Amino acid sequence: MFIRTEQKAATRARILETARKQLERDGYDGTSIRSVAGEAKVAAGTVLLHFRDKQDLLHAALFDDLETTWARAREVSEKKMQKKGSLERALTALARAFFDYYAERPALSRALLRESLFAAPPWSQRFAAQVAEVHAHVAQLAGAAKSRGELEADVDVALLGAAFFSFYYFALMAWLQGGHAHPLQFFERLLRQHLDGLAPRRKR
Amino acid sequence: MFIRTEQKAATRARILETARKQLERDGYDGTSIRSVAGEAKVAAGTVLLHFRDKQDLLHAALFDDLETTWARAREVSEKKMQKKGSLERALTALARAFFDYYAERPALSRALLRESLFAAPPWSQRFAAQVAEVHAHVAQLAGAAKSRGELEADVDVALLGAAFFSFYYFALMAWLQGGHAHPLQFFERLLRQHLDGLAPRRKR
Repeated sequence: MFIRTEQKAATRARILETARKQLERDGYDGTSIRSVAGEAKVAAGTVLLHFRDKQDLLHAALFDDLETTWARAREVSEKKMQKKGSLERALTALARAFFDYYAERPALSRALLRESLFAAPPWSQRFAAQVAEVHAHVAQLAGAAKSRGELEADVDVALLGAAFFSFYYFALMAWLQGGHAHPLQFFERLLRQHLDGLAPRRKR
Repeated sequence: MFIRTEQKAATRARILETARKQLERDGYDGTSIRSVAGEAKVAAGTVLLHFRDKQDLLHAALFDDLETTWARAREVSEKKMQKKGSLERALTALARAFFDYYAERPALSRALLRESLFAAPPWSQRFAAQVAEVHAHVAQLAGAAKSRGELEADVDVALLGAAFFSFYYFALMAWLQGGHAHPLQFFERLLRQHLDGLAPRRKR
């Protein structure tokens, strides 16, 4: 039984890795359950034991990758925060980890955004939970910045987290549509304007 | 000749109106060239004389509507700016016009975002030109706010325009995904935080 579970996990991992490779190389439309099965050297029925359909396979492939990216990004952003003590640096480090991931797999990223922005359950819930975790982390970093006096005491940190995602998605979309070659720089400029503040009349 | 051109335009308009109705009622997958032709009382071939395929029809239906919405929104936001003299009010009025349009056609809006975010040429260029026009308008409103002393003299108005779109798209996506019942309120809160500024150390 133990061996069978191990084998099953190994097969699942091999299918996912093959799917990632094909999606990046051949695009979403050029990838099929059959082509993935062929290259992973398993029967199409085996792929369908693990994944309901092609979209399920795409979501699983990306979700796993994003989990790994997020675990690394969380660590890096926390270190930046402790060492440099700047919210801007911490948030930039967080965004950079994700942008770096997408830059390595532009075709896969395009498919991800297109398919996952309007994913159906259960994937919509899983992606939403992932976003909620990152959002909570951003709010936590902002809270720490507040207690250091880096932000006004009345700043809504949850709202700041939403602004972080606004800039992150906008830079990502602009990059995927070919409008901006450097999404991180664009993100950084937007974030800086947000953190700097614009209204001269505000009491300080 | 004149009558034929008139007739052609009237047929095109009737096809578009029927398409909008069907897309809203039956969704993107439930709409076809054939079903639109049937309800508009024209041959399927006639629809295909005007539109290449279903996606072309969707894009044309939305593009025309957005043009109308935008013309109205531009006027309202300019009036707000002249009368109330507040950039925040003007930008909120601008966003409200679009959110109101989407709220009237939620299913169509969902299809729009899904299909048009990654539209191929020529639609990608047309949508990009539309966004560029709105962006220029936002920058112009921000420039006027600057000369009235409502914004710091060194504020990058083009970047402020990008922030406007970041919040607009994020609120729109959150609404379409069921995360926020009131996209305009969410947009307003994000915009206010951006305009208020967050960093207490900034020299004033």
